[in-house]
Amino acid sequence: MSITIGVFDSGVGGLTVVRELKRLLPAQPLIYFGDTARTPYGTKSQETIIQYAREDTRFLLERGAGILVIACHSAASTATSTLRQEFSEPIFEVITPSIEQALALTKRKIIGLIGTRATVTSGVYEKAIHARMPDTKVYSQACPLLVSLVEEGWLKARESRMIVKKYLRPLKNRQIDTLVLGCTHYPLLKQTIQEKIGKNVKIVDPSAEIARAVYSYLESKNQLSEKLHGRGDRFFVSDLTPTTQEVVQRFLGTRVQFEKTSLSCRD
Amino acid sequence: MSITIGVFDSGVGGLTVVRELKRLLPAQPLIYFGDTARTPYGTKSQETIIQYAREDTRFLLERGAGILVIACHSAASTATSTLRQEFSEPIFEVITPSIEQALALTKRKIIGLIGTRATVTSGVYEKAIHARMPDTKVYSQACPLLVSLVEEGWLKARESRMIVKKYLRPLKNRQIDTLVLGCTHYPLLKQTIQEKIGKNVKIVDPSAEIARAVYSYLESKNQLSEKLHGRGDRFFVSDLTPTTQEVVQRFLGTRVQFEKTSLSCRD
Repeated sequence: MSITIGVFDSGVGGLTVVRELKRLLPAQPLIYFGDTARTPYGTKSQETIIQYAREDTRFLLERGAGILVIACHSAASTATSTLRQEFSEPIFEVITPSIEQALALTKRKIIGLIGTRATVTSGVYEKAIHARMPDTKVYSQACPLLVSLVEEGWLKARESRMIVKKYLRPLKNRQIDTLVLGCTHYPLLKQTIQEKIGKNVKIVDPSAEIARAVYSYLESKNQLSEKLHGRGDRFFVSDLTPTTQEVVQRFLGTRVQFEKTSLSCRD
Repeated sequence: MSITIGVFDSGVGGLTVVRELKRLLPAQPLIYFGDTARTPYGTKSQETIIQYAREDTRFLLERGAGILVIACHSAASTATSTLRQEFSEPIFEVITPSIEQALALTKRKIIGLIGTRATVTSGVYEKAIHARMPDTKVYSQACPLLVSLVEEGWLKARESRMIVKKYLRPLKNRQIDTLVLGCTHYPLLKQTIQEKIGKNVKIVDPSAEIARAVYSYLESKNQLSEKLHGRGDRFFVSDLTPTTQEVVQRFLGTRVQFEKTSLSCRD
């Protein structure tokens, strides 16, 4: 019996994580839930994000997920400890693996982080980095506009390049040598980010890191699926607009058959 | 007995409408609901926006609103006809008064509209304008990034000016002579918008228009309040973050005492 991976995100950005998971674990069954009816999470309060993450988790577990991946950085930084207390299934999140990677890469021990306001405010990255390597300096920058720029598809636009530069300037001034992309949307701007922060700064893309962590876990438990079974992966969203597929194409490089579901109150 | 005005919006942008209402109707009791836990509406599907608008309406009516103002353009353009079928209270929305004003102002009968994707996709402005003046040309442009720019507080930033210019270029090429600001956030960028669209183009700010419409209605029913009664206006939101007050200051020019409420499901 294969373990099903349940992945949730505030929207469809978490499909960057799915892409990496499928690259490493093509036969492992997967269920995705994107809370597109309440997206984004990154501008909302901790209390609200925790409540949403709890509902998302319950949805995936009810549909057979055996391990959980929090693809949303805002939810990962805010809700992980609560979810681990409330649910017994193993819960992976995008933050820890990218921190490990950043610590492995940094030479000068000066790490930068960019993310949503919720992620940056949580201070989770700083705490986790200092717990492992107390003399490391961590500088964070909230970049609220980048999600909108990616969803608008302005990946190479001059305006986007200027905005990226403006957000990264304080981190550049701090001479960071490693930069963590603390939001599922940012890898799509990676080229511009690399250019503006400088080519010597190493960029950590959490999607790749978390896929490796999940792979190791399943391997250690001898539960890697080697053959595809059943009906295949399922992709749920709480809202579906005419532009959803267009955005998905950007994240996943392919289209997906979505099933629409609702977590909100019935009358 | 004074009629209480109930105003809802997807977030706090609708406070621009409140500001105008209080200017004309300082003593009229008012309840506001901002659905900050699910904001924004403008990127979501029609079905979801209608459901949210229904819940917002019910919330305000249960708390004593006697007339309703839909301050959110995405909800106004998508949900008004459904709400009017389902509720018997008079429902005002931001669109009709601004269309009347645009038709009064346009000389060449070429009107431009900017708004969220939901507002533009709805086609409501075009339909309403053509119903009144069939030979008028209407050109619409979705400007999804402007809401984020306003919430980030980049009102005069160079990046914002470039983005406004980029969005307005197609409308400028069409030689519109009147531009409707179809989103509560846009009046904060009015100066930049005026500069980029050209000083001869007349700009219609719906907040001022809807306040006039509500005033006329109450006056015609002889229900204008002349003295302040009771506990005063109440402001509800479904989520409250550390930056909410900062954003509110931008819209209203003053702070507000918010009461947090929840429309979402209980466990």
